[in-house]
Amino acid sequence: VRSRPDARRIASRPAFSSVAIVGVGLMGGSLALALRRAWPGVAVFGVDRQAVVERAQEQGAIHYGAEDLWLVAGADLIVLAAPAATNIELLSALLPHAAPDAVITDVGSVKRRIMAAAEQLPVNFVGGHPVCGGTSSGLSAANPDMFAGRQWLLTAGSRTHRDALERVLAMARAVGARPRVVDASEHDRLMAYVSHLPQLVSSMLMRAAGEAVGDHGLSLAGAGLLDTTRLAASTASIWEDICRENGDEIAPALDRMIGLLVELRTSVGTRAPLGLFDEASRWRRRLEELGEIASAGKV
Amino acid sequence: VRSRPDARRIASRPAFSSVAIVGVGLMGGSLALALRRAWPGVAVFGVDRQAVVERAQEQGAIHYGAEDLWLVAGADLIVLAAPAATNIELLSALLPHAAPDAVITDVGSVKRRIMAAAEQLPVNFVGGHPVCGGTSSGLSAANPDMFAGRQWLLTAGSRTHRDALERVLAMARAVGARPRVVDASEHDRLMAYVSHLPQLVSSMLMRAAGEAVGDHGLSLAGAGLLDTTRLAASTASIWEDICRENGDEIAPALDRMIGLLVELRTSVGTRAPLGLFDEASRWRRRLEELGEIASAGKV
Repeated sequence: VRSRPDARRIASRPAFSSVAIVGVGLMGGSLALALRRAWPGVAVFGVDRQAVVERAQEQGAIHYGAEDLWLVAGADLIVLAAPAATNIELLSALLPHAAPDAVITDVGSVKRRIMAAAEQLPVNFVGGHPVCGGTSSGLSAANPDMFAGRQWLLTAGSRTHRDALERVLAMARAVGARPRVVDASEHDRLMAYVSHLPQLVSSMLMRAAGEAVGDHGLSLAGAGLLDTTRLAASTASIWEDICRENGDEIAPALDRMIGLLVELRTSVGTRAPLGLFDEASRWRRRLEELGEIASAGKV
Repeated sequence: VRSRPDARRIASRPAFSSVAIVGVGLMGGSLALALRRAWPGVAVFGVDRQAVVERAQEQGAIHYGAEDLWLVAGADLIVLAAPAATNIELLSALLPHAAPDAVITDVGSVKRRIMAAAEQLPVNFVGGHPVCGGTSSGLSAANPDMFAGRQWLLTAGSRTHRDALERVLAMARAVGARPRVVDASEHDRLMAYVSHLPQLVSSMLMRAAGEAVGDHGLSLAGAGLLDTTRLAASTASIWEDICRENGDEIAPALDRMIGLLVELRTSVGTRAPLGLFDEASRWRRRLEELGEIASAGKV
């Protein structure tokens, strides 16, 4: 378990004077709530459907909201918090409205495509991926502690100003996250294995078990199945999106996973597949150690 | 999260007067500790290597222990808590020593083979599978609360006396578990999907991710990979054993899992694999509901 420092203890000088968040769902709403608390003097606006911005205002997540992109005009930070493919469309759609010196960032979990799109546009863009979330979605699940102690991966392109990167780093720190700058292509390759593959495997395992054994079988399950399939509760549309956006990195990761299961399949019931489990438990111990190192602030 | 009632509140009349546990590791040691607490008047013996029985005595898990099977002679309940294949060998090995009316049970997670072996012998055997455990192994990880609130699956054969089944049910209840009688073949088929497949998938996922991304990639992982690979920390030899014992049920479960991943693989990056995730999240909700029903005592 990683330590989650109280985000409230961080009293930083705001790196921005007004923030517009496009998409006030789980991530956008949580960021709005966290920024209101971390930077009380900063104006936080939201762009979303009317019903959502009304609820966001009632919850105190945003000062003001609207359905139209013109709202981003007054912001010196614009955060794209819609689904990944929509964020890419938003980049050009908000251009006519955004202030010329506005910094734009996103909170999507795939980075190469949006970085490539930003390279083609006159925008000062910093890619962002807060490594957190939840199996619930929407504003009602938003939580200002969402980012506390979690990593926030940032990617810079050739057009990204150094100053913009520093200010987005400060924003991530202000909400309690541990930001790290990574290469966008490397990010997507690594996430295919440590985030996307676990999701796909978890969902397919849940489906395999549910379809094969039904209620009676599931009622006999212990904690192992519950842990291993927790991610299967995630919102389907988000994963449909990620499979499309990061398909060329996910495909080889799936191939590797299928290869290992086939290797295991051929040895089950015949020779002992001991090496396969030993190797896995060594990596698991390493994962736990790395988590401890990270939560001790050494990463 | 399932509720775990305090095992201490259960003050049952002991169904046995003395219990011999063969194999004082994580499961055997936990059962010894739990029985000492639940049935203070009952003698608990342990058979294991000398160093283990000495530690078990020091910990107060057993009254007395030895390396030799003759120790089971005085017991009216004999619990086999060695690895699955060893338990089957023990069944015939302890025959010359066991009292003729002794009830024998085991705590292995595969049931068909040991039930078939017991059918061939003049033993009063009840198959048992407490659905719990942990990624640690050995007596040092033993814990008297191990069984509290957990299921304990029991299987009966044609030689099993009704009275023996009732007394083993009482023993499982005495240590706080929720016992259920199931068919041995059905048990192994269901466990292949809800227990063995999750373990194999978790281990292979950990291996795929670790080998592909190394320390740097693992250091970027969020809670999803941690949950999904928790089981990968399990003791390799136990799973080697289970793969061998239940190979003919595990093989089709692995085939089904591989089939779903291949189906997903062909749709990644092309058409939307939405149905695959929707189906998975429906089963996940059902799994959570069934867990709530079970912990409410309705199963």
